[in-house]
Amino acid sequence: MTYRAAIIGGSGYTGAELLRLLSTHPDIDVVQVTADSNAGAAVASLYPSLAAAYPGLEYGPMDPAAVAGLDLVFLAMPHGASQGFAPQVIDRVGHVVDLGADFRLPAAEYTRWYGDDHTAPELLDRFAYGLVELGRPEIAAADHVAVPGCYPTAANLALAPLFAAGLVEPTVIVDAMSGLSGAGRGLKVASHFSEADESVSAYSLLTHRHTAEIEQVLTKVAGKPVTALFTPHLVPMIRGMQATCHAVPVGAGLSTESLLATYREFYADEPFVVVVDDPPPTKAATGANTCLVTVRFDERTGRVLALGVLDNLVKGASGGAVQNANVVLGLPEGTALPTVGMWP
Amino acid sequence: MTYRAAIIGGSGYTGAELLRLLSTHPDIDVVQVTADSNAGAAVASLYPSLAAAYPGLEYGPMDPAAVAGLDLVFLAMPHGASQGFAPQVIDRVGHVVDLGADFRLPAAEYTRWYGDDHTAPELLDRFAYGLVELGRPEIAAADHVAVPGCYPTAANLALAPLFAAGLVEPTVIVDAMSGLSGAGRGLKVASHFSEADESVSAYSLLTHRHTAEIEQVLTKVAGKPVTALFTPHLVPMIRGMQATCHAVPVGAGLSTESLLATYREFYADEPFVVVVDDPPPTKAATGANTCLVTVRFDERTGRVLALGVLDNLVKGASGGAVQNANVVLGLPEGTALPTVGMWP
Amino acid sequence: MTYRAAIIGGSGYTGAELLRLLSTHPDIDVVQVTADSNAGAAVASLYPSLAAAYPGLEYGPMDPAAVAGLDLVFLAMPHGASQGFAPQVIDRVGHVVDLGADFRLPAAEYTRWYGDDHTAPELLDRFAYGLVELGRPEIAAADHVAVPGCYPTAANLALAPLFAAGLVEPTVIVDAMSGLSGAGRGLKVASHFSEADESVSAYSLLTHRHTAEIEQVLTKVAGKPVTALFTPHLVPMIRGMQATCHAVPVGAGLSTESLLATYREFYADEPFVVVVDDPPPTKAATGANTCLVTVRFDERTGRVLALGVLDNLVKGASGGAVQNANVVLGLPEGTALPTVGMWP
Amino acid sequence: MTYRAAIIGGSGYTGAELLRLLSTHPDIDVVQVTADSNAGAAVASLYPSLAAAYPGLEYGPMDPAAVAGLDLVFLAMPHGASQGFAPQVIDRVGHVVDLGADFRLPAAEYTRWYGDDHTAPELLDRFAYGLVELGRPEIAAADHVAVPGCYPTAANLALAPLFAAGLVEPTVIVDAMSGLSGAGRGLKVASHFSEADESVSAYSLLTHRHTAEIEQVLTKVAGKPVTALFTPHLVPMIRGMQATCHAVPVGAGLSTESLLATYREFYADEPFVVVVDDPPPTKAATGANTCLVTVRFDERTGRVLALGVLDNLVKGASGGAVQNANVVLGLPEGTALPTVGMWP
Repeated sequence: MTYRAAIIGGSGYTGAELLRLLSTHPDIDVVQVTADSNAGAAVASLYPSLAAAYPGLEYGPMDPAAVAGLDLVFLAMPHGASQGFAPQVIDRVGHVVDLGADFRLPAAEYTRWYGDDHTAPELLDRFAYGLVELGRPEIAAADHVAVPGCYPTAANLALAPLFAAGLVEPTVIVDAMSGLSGAGRGLKVASHFSEADESVSAYSLLTHRHTAEIEQVLTKVAGKPVTALFTPHLVPMIRGMQATCHAVPVGAGLSTESLLATYREFYADEPFVVVVDDPPPTKAATGANTCLVTVRFDERTGRVLALGVLDNLVKGASGGAVQNANVVLGLPEGTALPTVGMWP
Repeated sequence: MTYRAAIIGGSGYTGAELLRLLSTHPDIDVVQVTADSNAGAAVASLYPSLAAAYPGLEYGPMDPAAVAGLDLVFLAMPHGASQGFAPQVIDRVGHVVDLGADFRLPAAEYTRWYGDDHTAPELLDRFAYGLVELGRPEIAAADHVAVPGCYPTAANLALAPLFAAGLVEPTVIVDAMSGLSGAGRGLKVASHFSEADESVSAYSLLTHRHTAEIEQVLTKVAGKPVTALFTPHLVPMIRGMQATCHAVPVGAGLSTESLLATYREFYADEPFVVVVDDPPPTKAATGANTCLVTVRFDERTGRVLALGVLDNLVKGASGGAVQNANVVLGLPEGTALPTVGMWP
Repeated sequence: MTYRAAIIGGSGYTGAELLRLLSTHPDIDVVQVTADSNAGAAVASLYPSLAAAYPGLEYGPMDPAAVAGLDLVFLAMPHGASQGFAPQVIDRVGHVVDLGADFRLPAAEYTRWYGDDHTAPELLDRFAYGLVELGRPEIAAADHVAVPGCYPTAANLALAPLFAAGLVEPTVIVDAMSGLSGAGRGLKVASHFSEADESVSAYSLLTHRHTAEIEQVLTKVAGKPVTALFTPHLVPMIRGMQATCHAVPVGAGLSTESLLATYREFYADEPFVVVVDDPPPTKAATGANTCLVTVRFDERTGRVLALGVLDNLVKGASGGAVQNANVVLGLPEGTALPTVGMWP
Repeated sequence: MTYRAAIIGGSGYTGAELLRLLSTHPDIDVVQVTADSNAGAAVASLYPSLAAAYPGLEYGPMDPAAVAGLDLVFLAMPHGASQGFAPQVIDRVGHVVDLGADFRLPAAEYTRWYGDDHTAPELLDRFAYGLVELGRPEIAAADHVAVPGCYPTAANLALAPLFAAGLVEPTVIVDAMSGLSGAGRGLKVASHFSEADESVSAYSLLTHRHTAEIEQVLTKVAGKPVTALFTPHLVPMIRGMQATCHAVPVGAGLSTESLLATYREFYADEPFVVVVDDPPPTKAATGANTCLVTVRFDERTGRVLALGVLDNLVKGASGGAVQNANVVLGLPEGTALPTVGMWP
C-alpha cells in the first residue's frame, strides 16, 4: 500500500530535503505540504531543484483539519511550534514524525534548556526519541517520533560505543562544526553570505540546547549520568557536520585498535553508520544518510578521541526523519535513503 | 537482462559520478573500473562517498583485453587517450560511450582545435554525437557515442531553438562560467583551493576547444555555418555551469513572450530540459541531469539573450553519458538519472 | 591640515570599507559615522575587524545638522536616500562624496532607470561623475562627486580605450560577475549563504540600472550614442567583479597586439589601472584600488573582447570614493589607497 | 636607516604575505626574493596582486652568497630546509627570521616530532622562539628568531593567561580549525578545490607536529610540564584559524567574569591581542596581525573553555615574522602591521 503523508512547515530546508528524499520513496506519497509565510507559493519557486518532481505542488496554509486521516505527518516547523500543532492532529493521523525539538526531552529538561514551559507535556510519552541506531525497538513500538537534533546525532553516534562498553568517565567534551544549512532558511546576519563565508565562528558557548540531547542519550546508554561541554562552530559550507569528541578512560588497557574493534562490533549491523580507519571528511556524507565515525586512543595524554561526520540535512534531520518513518510504518528501513554521497 | 559495464579511467570526477549514478541503475552493473596511476587503490579510499555502494571495488589496471565481452564500456579518460584505447576494444564490446573529446569532431576539426593528428580517424563514423535532445535518432541507431562537452551542452541547448527556427544571425557570443570540478581531479595551480576560492578567472580566451562543438552543433541545427566567440570563466564552486549567450535577430517581430513560446514548444517532450521564466540559478541543477534554459528579447538593443544552466558533472558529463547509454541499450532514457537537484 | 569627515549610512559594507581605508589616511579624520537602524551600536560590534582602529566609535543617528562645518561628507546610504539628505547638508559642508546612484545621471535618465522622479534635480549639476580616470579635470573642478557604480567602473575602464580611439561600433555587450558583497549587508534570500554558495545566478535581465551609467560614460567617451546590453551574475565569493565585454570593430586592421598597445598608451599615467597580457583573476585586486584590464581581437569572428576586474568594494565603491575625495581636496590621489591586493 | 632584507623561499604563501606586508614598511627594503622551482619567474606572474608594488621583481635562485651583508633574511622555506640553509648565512647577515619549524624546538624534541635528526643543532641556541607576547625580552636580546607555527600561536595566546596564573591542570585539549592557505601553495589532493570546498576534515590525529610547540610554550609559562591533545581540522576558507581549548581548573572559585578580567590584565599592554566578550569570528582578523581571545568557565561541567582566532598567514606566520623583525631591529613593534581586518 501507499502511505499518504503531509509535510507541515515545508518551506524550510528540512522540508525541502524531505521532498527531495521522498520523491524517490515508492511507498510514501506527499499529498500536502504547508508553509506559513510562504503559503500560496509554488514549491518550484522556492526550490527550482524540485520542479521536475513536484511540478504543480503549492504550499498550503497551516490547517490541522486538512491533515486528518493521513497516515503520516512530518512536522518541519520552527522549534516551539510543534507543541502547539501536534495536539490538534496527533489523534487524527497515523504517525507524527517531528523534526523539531519539542518532543525530544522531558518537560523539565525542555524548560531548562529552551526557557519556556512545555505546553503539551501530556504528549511527551507518546513520542519515541528517534535515534534509530540506539533505540530501534522503542521507535518501532511507538506511534510517533521526535527526530534527534543534528549535533546530538553526530556526537552520540561517535560516543555511544564508549559508554555502552563502560570504557570512559561520565564527562565528555564535544567540539562540533556545522555548515550553514543547519541554521535554516530564515534570514539573519550570521547566515548572510558575506558574513559567513571565509570565517569560522564559535557560538552559543556553554548554552547550546543540543547539549541536553547529548547528555540524555549518553546517560541512557551509560546507565548513569553523563555531562557534556558542547561547543558548536559555524564553518563556511552548506552541508556537513563534524563532531570531535573527547573522553577520559576509566581504566588502563585501551588502544586505538581495541577501540576500533569495539566500534566495528557495535555498529556491525547498522546500514547507516560506517566505522572507518582514517578521519572521515564531512564530504563523504554529502547528500547521504550516512554517519561515518572513527576513534583513537592517545597514549601520550591518556585520552580517547572520537569523531563523527554526517550531512546535517540528511542523517541529521530529514534523512533521519524518513528512516524513522520507515521504522514506524514497518517498511524496509533504508527505503529512499541514499548511502552514496555526492563527491565532489 | 542486466548489462555488464566497465568504466575506464574511473578515478577522475566523471568516473566517480558515473559510479554514483550507476549505483541506482537496475539494468547496468559496473563490473570493472580501471585507473592509471591509481590502479590498485580502493574506490572507497579516493571517494569515501562511494564506500557504501562499492565496498570492495578496486581500480584495476588499464587492460583492453579485460573488457572483452562486456556490453558497455564508458571511457572517462583524459582527452586524447580514448583514440588510443578505443581501437583496442570497439569490436570486442557492445557499446563504447566516450566522455572525452576524441570522437566528437571530424578529424580535421579535431586537429584544428586540439593540435594533434587524430590517430583513429577510421572510427569517427561509428560514433554518434551524443547530445540526445538534438540527435536522438542518430544516437539510437549508433553503436557508440561521443558524449558532448559540458560547455557545448549548456550553450547548444540554450541556443538551439533560435537556430532551429531560423531566428538569428550566424554569429553568437557565449560567455560561460564553470565550477572547478569541470577542471577535473588532476592537480594544478588554477584548481588549488586558495587560488580558485574567492576569485573569478576568464581563461583560454578565443581558443577554448569547446568552441568547435558549439559551432558544429549549431551549424547542423541551423543548416548553415555558425561561428561562436566563446569565453569560459572559472567561478569558485564545485559543480554548476552557466552559459550566457547572445545572438542577433534576422528580422523584426521578436518578443520575449514569443521566444519563450518557441522554446517551450521546442523542448515540450524533453524530460531533461526545463524552460523557465526567470533566470535559473545553477543550483537548481546540482546533482540532477537537468538543463534549465530561458530567453529574452531586448528591445533596447535588438538582441536575443539566451541562458542555460546545468551540473557540469551530470548533464554536462556522466549524466549525459548514462542518458546516451540508456538510448543505445534501448532502455527508458531516464533510468538512474535524477531530475531533482540538491538544494541547498 | 587634517580634514574632518563624516560617513553617513556607515553601517553597510561600503561604510565599513571607508572606515578600513580611512584608518590609514594621514589627512582625513573620520569624526562621525551615522547609521539608521544601527544607531547607537558600536562600530566594533558590527565589524570586529575595525575594533583596533576605532575602539570607541559608535554609530550616531542621521542628523544633517551634526555634519555642518565638516570638510567632507561621504554618503553611503541606500540608493534613493542621498537625494533627500544631500540638500540638507550640501551648503554646510566642504564636499559631498556620494556612493549612491542619486547624482550619477541626469534627472530624466534617473527616472527612466530607477522608476521614481528625482527629488533634488537642482543639485545634479553640482556633482561631477567620479570615474577619475575618465574625468579627472571635471572632478578636480567640482565641489561634489557622485562615485560610479561598481559594474560601470569595471565595464567602462575595460571599454573606454576602444571608444576613445573610435575603433568599435556603438553597441556593446557586457556580461559581468559580482561577489555577494556587492549586494550589501541587507538581508535577503539571494544573499543567504546556503542559497548563494555553490551557485551562479544571472539577474535583472535587460533592466539592471547600471546599464545607464555604462551607456552614459561610453557615449561621452565616444562622442556619439552608445548602447549596452548588460547582464550581471552573482557568483559565490565575497569580493570581486569581472566585466567581460564585447564590441564589433568599425574597420579592418585590428589585432590583439595593436589593441594592447592602445590600452597601454591610454592608461600609461594611471596608477590604478593596470593593463595586463593574460586574463586577470579578480583575486588580483582583492582589497586594492586597482582595476586590471586586458583585450583581444578575435580573427575568427572579427570581434573585440575586453576584460576588466576589480574589487567591487574598493575601486568599485569605497576606494573610488577615497580617490575622488583626494582629488577634490587636492591631496595626492593615491593616499590611503592600497595597490597591493591580498593573495591568497 | 633602511634595512636591506631578503626573502628566501619567497614563492609560497608566507613569502607572498611578507611581500604584501613589507610593501608598506618604511624601514625595510626587500632587495632580494628567491625561490626554488620558480626561480626566474616574475613575482607578478605568480601573484598579480603584488604587481603594483614590485613591478620588476623576479625570483632569484637559492644562493647563500647572494645574501651576505644583508641586515635581515627571512626564511620562508619548506620545513626542514632552513637547517640546511641557515648555517651558510647566519654569520654573514644581521638577523635571520625563520618562518619554518627548524629552530623552534630543542634537537631531541625536533627529532621526536619531525622524525629526522636535526642537522644544525649547534645553531638552536642562537634563535629565540618568537611568540613576542610571551617572550619579548628574549627576542629583543637575540639575533635570530624562529617564528612560531600558526596553530601554536592561536592556542598558546588563548591558554597562556590560565597557566601564567596557575589556574588549570597540566593537560589541555585543543581542537583547531584552519583555512587552506595554512597548507601552503604546494599542490596536493587535500588542497584541491573540489576536494576541500564544502567539507571539513580532521587530520594528523594525535601526531600533528605543532603539538610540540603548544606543550613547550605552555610548559614554560606554567613552570611545569604541560601536555596537549591537539586535533586540527581543515575548513573550506582561505585564511583564518580557530583554536578551541579546554582545561580543568586546579581549584574552585573561577567564573567567566574573573577569567575575562585575568585575560584583560594579562594582555593589557599588547597591541596585537584583543580580549573580547563574545566568541570572535576568524573574519575579525582577516589580513590583520591581531589575535582575538575570549574565555569561559562552565559551571555545569567545571571546565574552562578558551578561544583564540587569528589570520594564519599574518599573526600566524608572516605578520608574526615582521613583528619579530621589528623587535630584533629595535623598530616600533607595530610597523607595517595592520590591526584592521578586511570585513567582509
